[in-house]
Amino acid sequence: MSALEIAMRAAIAAGEGARGRTSPNPPVGCVVLDPTGAVAGVGATQPPGGPHAEVMALRAAGELARGGTAVVTLEPCAHHGRTPPCVLALLDAGISEVHFAVADPFPAAAGGADQLRAAGVTVHSGLLADAVRKGPLRAWLHHVRTGRPHVTWKFASTVDGRSAAADGTSRWISSPESRAEVHALRRKIDAVIVGTATVVTDNPQLTARTPEGGLAERQPLRVVVGESDIPEGSRVLDDAAETLHLRTRDPREVLAVLAGRGVVDVLLEGGPRLAGAFWESGVVDRVLMYVAPLLLGAGTAALGELGVSTMSAALPLSYESVTMSGPDVRISAVPAQD
Amino acid sequence: MSALEIAMRAAIAAGEGARGRTSPNPPVGCVVLDPTGAVAGVGATQPPGGPHAEVMALRAAGELARGGTAVVTLEPCAHHGRTPPCVLALLDAGISEVHFAVADPFPAAAGGADQLRAAGVTVHSGLLADAVRKGPLRAWLHHVRTGRPHVTWKFASTVDGRSAAADGTSRWISSPESRAEVHALRRKIDAVIVGTATVVTDNPQLTARTPEGGLAERQPLRVVVGESDIPEGSRVLDDAAETLHLRTRDPREVLAVLAGRGVVDVLLEGGPRLAGAFWESGVVDRVLMYVAPLLLGAGTAALGELGVSTMSAALPLSYESVTMSGPDVRISAVPAQD
Ligand SMILES: NC(=O)c1ccc[n+]([C@@H]2O[C@H](COP(=O)([O-])OP(=O)(O)OC[C@H]3O[C@@H](n4cnc5c(N)ncnc54)[C@H](OP(=O)(O)O)[C@@H]3O)[C@@H](O)[C@H]2O)c1
Ligand SMILES: NC(=O)c1ccc[n+]([C@@H]2O[C@H](COP(=O)([O-])OP(=O)(O)OC[C@H]3O[C@@H](n4cnc5c(N)ncnc54)[C@H](OP(=O)(O)O)[C@@H]3O)[C@@H](O)[C@H]2O)c1
Repeated sequence: MSALEIAMRAAIAAGEGARGRTSPNPPVGCVVLDPTGAVAGVGATQPPGGPHAEVMALRAAGELARGGTAVVTLEPCAHHGRTPPCVLALLDAGISEVHFAVADPFPAAAGGADQLRAAGVTVHSGLLADAVRKGPLRAWLHHVRTGRPHVTWKFASTVDGRSAAADGTSRWISSPESRAEVHALRRKIDAVIVGTATVVTDNPQLTARTPEGGLAERQPLRVVVGESDIPEGSRVLDDAAETLHLRTRDPREVLAVLAGRGVVDVLLEGGPRLAGAFWESGVVDRVLMYVAPLLLGAGTAALGELGVSTMSAALPLSYESVTMSGPDVRISAVPAQD
Repeated sequence: MSALEIAMRAAIAAGEGARGRTSPNPPVGCVVLDPTGAVAGVGATQPPGGPHAEVMALRAAGELARGGTAVVTLEPCAHHGRTPPCVLALLDAGISEVHFAVADPFPAAAGGADQLRAAGVTVHSGLLADAVRKGPLRAWLHHVRTGRPHVTWKFASTVDGRSAAADGTSRWISSPESRAEVHALRRKIDAVIVGTATVVTDNPQLTARTPEGGLAERQPLRVVVGESDIPEGSRVLDDAAETLHLRTRDPREVLAVLAGRGVVDVLLEGGPRLAGAFWESGVVDRVLMYVAPLLLGAGTAALGELGVSTMSAALPLSYESVTMSGPDVRISAVPAQD
């Protein structure tokens, strides 16, 4: 790996660490190298209204940035928004070379590379672009492209495809490792979605918890979808996090309301009927499945009716990765037409 | 890898190649090295009544075996069966060193290592024993230990756990790669088992086919289980292979009958009800699952009732391997108590 690649990996990690705190802005990461190529500063996007990644990294680098290189996951912005444009900050700091992974697809912000070049800065793009597109900027890029939040449908099932036993029990289907991972994921996304029936049946709290069992500092918005009332005393109504009850059965309406609230990245946690409706509406962007090493032989599947009745009409997916999560198999897939 | 390890890997491959032709004898592989350590001969167990692996390898080596080393997956046999003991053949050929992976667990055949040592041969055991135990000798060792054939339950399902669509269609659920693999597996086992309902509904031929679509040279015994008649004209009744109809609903009885016919290694291919009954009887030794990158949202699961109604009573498995088969995920697992 070249020094620039190492710097971009660090920028990606910084961006990944900012996920869940920046929406509707992108979780960008930036590394500033001094003129000798040594790391002088690392930064990531701050919560809306706060400084962008480049400014954070430049602050950390101080005078070492002069004549140095900025390595950043997204093209530096050129427009005056709530903060001054990053292009100005880079020029003020005396940066002489910029490497960014992904071009800014947002019309109002684009043009950063051109402005930098016009000011005499050497600019390169595309370094580790794929890792950034599938990594920290995945949901934000999807949101810019489609206007909808990025939806990850997460579920756990047994080897024989059951997500709940015959008596309705589904607790502890996946391992402690996988459950901890889901809690870590909840901290990185903006909202979790479930149907009213899951609230009535399971009474989940839908919060992000730390490995020690406490509430994480940041909590996703809890979204309950369906026309029925949420029963008084339900745990989703506690004050651990904000809860939104959307009295609709239209997944696209749900996502439009959430987009309007600055939600970019959501986790769809079921149950089967709501998940089926989201798939049928064509608004699911990723499947995250945990297969537990168990057999039940009875019980319900994770996915309900999505309007497919024969094998040749099955919805095609494409696997992104197949890995282990403790004793469980973790499968990530996307719709094949993507 | 040492030269001996390379030789044992070749012996394992030779044994694997003999699977499906040796039952009730073990598919053993043997490599003979000349005194300089070069491969002089490779052999595998021939069909019942034919020579054992050691004899085949010694024949191939000829005079080069004198003062050489035999590397063999199973302890050489010491008893007079249908063929003379391999120990005598090794001594006659002038072999001075023997490395075997797994000790012979079969009382009548054991004692080979001691007899070789008594005759002045250097004997080592245990080399790559695990690869042999989980590889070509797996079913045979299980059969010797339990008296039952080794049962692999094979199935294909979608990501959402469906093995057939709502209208009953299940053809082409898995990829051409996975289907070719199942045909190759059928050539390596002694019998395939299905329930009467699968014969009535799907009318499968249950033969092993070559990649070109022709019948493979060797065909497993086709076993249909259940009290109903097999409809006249069913494809399992054609003369492509032998078919056995067992009019019982007791999986243990099925396996006892098959063991009595010299069947060591079987593939249980469903349907869900028969598979559930086998699991409930505790006689399934391995799960081989192909997960196709598809979603159905409706249809039937691969496994029916096995007497479990609540999550905490789910049957625990342990994953052996998780790999890709073309576009499908291939998961191999064993019961966790094993
Ligand atoms: N193991 C797991 O991973 C997991 C995860 C979640 C849930 N579950 C299980 O799933 C079970 C609940 O299943 P479920 O499928 O009934 O729950 P669900 O999908 O959470 O809720 C169904 C409800 O969602 C609302 N809804 C909104 N839009 C809809 C649409 N387009 N189509 C259909 N319904 C829509 C409806 O509520 P209104 O009638 O109020 O409009 C409907 O009754 C629980 O037993 C729970 O244990 C398991
Ligand atoms: N996708 C796949 O991998 C796959 C593979 C195979 C089958 N399938 C599907 O499975 C469906 C058939 O399902 P199924 O579960 O009815 O088929 P099945 O398990 O093949 O056959 C059930 C029959 O097996 C006999 N049986 C023997 N011992 C039994 C026991 N202990 N308990 C229950 N039954 C026993 C019974 O027949 P008697 O009444 O005659 O005694 C019973 O009716 C078909 O539609 C087929 O497409 C799918």
